[in-house]
Amino acid sequence: MIARAFKFNVPEATLKRLVYYRRCLYGFEKEGVSFIQSEDISRKCGVKSSVVRKDLSYFGDFGVRGKGYNVTQLKETLETLFDKSRRIKTALVGVGKLGLAIIEHSKENFLTEITSAFDISPDKVGKNISGVPIYHTNQLEEIIKKEKIKVSIIAIPPESVQNVVDRLVKAGIKAILSLALVPINVPSDVEVSFLDVLSEVEFLYFKLNLRRNK
Amino acid sequence: MIARAFKFNVPEATLKRLVYYRRCLYGFEKEGVSFIQSEDISRKCGVKSSVVRKDLSYFGDFGVRGKGYNVTQLKETLETLFDKSRRIKTALVGVGKLGLAIIEHSKENFLTEITSAFDISPDKVGKNISGVPIYHTNQLEEIIKKEKIKVSIIAIPPESVQNVVDRLVKAGIKAILSLALVPINVPSDVEVSFLDVLSEVEFLYFKLNLRRNK
Repeated sequence: MIARAFKFNVPEATLKRLVYYRRCLYGFEKEGVSFIQSEDISRKCGVKSSVVRKDLSYFGDFGVRGKGYNVTQLKETLETLFDKSRRIKTALVGVGKLGLAIIEHSKENFLTEITSAFDISPDKVGKNISGVPIYHTNQLEEIIKKEKIKVSIIAIPPESVQNVVDRLVKAGIKAILSLALVPINVPSDVEVSFLDVLSEVEFLYFKLNLRRNK
Repeated sequence: MIARAFKFNVPEATLKRLVYYRRCLYGFEKEGVSFIQSEDISRKCGVKSSVVRKDLSYFGDFGVRGKGYNVTQLKETLETLFDKSRRIKTALVGVGKLGLAIIEHSKENFLTEITSAFDISPDKVGKNISGVPIYHTNQLEEIIKKEKIKVSIIAIPPESVQNVVDRLVKAGIKAILSLALVPINVPSDVEVSFLDVLSEVEFLYFKLNLRRNK
């Protein structure tokens, strides 16, 4: 959540939306659509079309007057920002209900690939769930180093989070998405993000109240 | 994701952080802490302390020189923005792995309360999971109207989303958090937000790459 100055000086909110735009563009390409208007992206992503135009303007002028944006070209430009040459190898720590849902969901996905998962439950360790091998958390460092994984999702109880984070960082992880709302201490070269469904609900409700009180 | 002008002209990113701050403050209160520095919130929420100070400054001057922020006072002020008089009654549509994880998680939560859940599976309908009654999706309108629920989380397959959204809106829902990345059409008085774990991973990776390329 910490805003940083990036290469293109793109605001963080824009970066986040670009991730969603890329997915939408995949959808359009799949449907055989060649050109789209910002209004199409707007509808598909739930973002105002003026915001879409502003966001895309950071990366050059993609619009063709009267025709709109070239779907494939725009998608490819966004992908160069991601390093499209490879998928994002990701380690999942914690294979509870949420972890399982994430593994399943990752099968529909395009860039993020859960390449290994970790848990301590004997029922799960050694198994392979939807193509993802489940290792014992003891093997965290070994597997992450061997597979040169840089990204991790943690879906474990709050009390274990910092310990796991320390081990992930030592093993070479550079980006952590935590699904537990507890403080995390990491070195400054590690990116951390938090995600919490119920906090999002509160945020939505908050917006609704502010709108009503206007 | 659409930026709007709110009552206090608070940026949307700030609003989102306030939700997280409120949770942190609960944590501090529970631990018996009366005064905190912005650095404490910073560590607990993963937000720079300068950002914390800026965010809180929208709502008045809470800091006491040399002592920091009064935990209870700050928490209560944030809560007036949420309408603290009641919890957020929320309807969950879809009780798959993700839905179950959300129900479980909601038991640790303070404001958001899943008061009813909906599914079509005969294995689930009629049951009560962690205190949450599971109804058949046929009863969506009836229950939502009866319980005057305004907020909904949808955790169902993409192809069913718009149909469910239409029904939710007709039943009076004013805020929808969708966990499926498909376009949603709603009237302008309904707030929609999307949440996707794997998109968050891509965003993190994106940030990491931009930082490396600087």
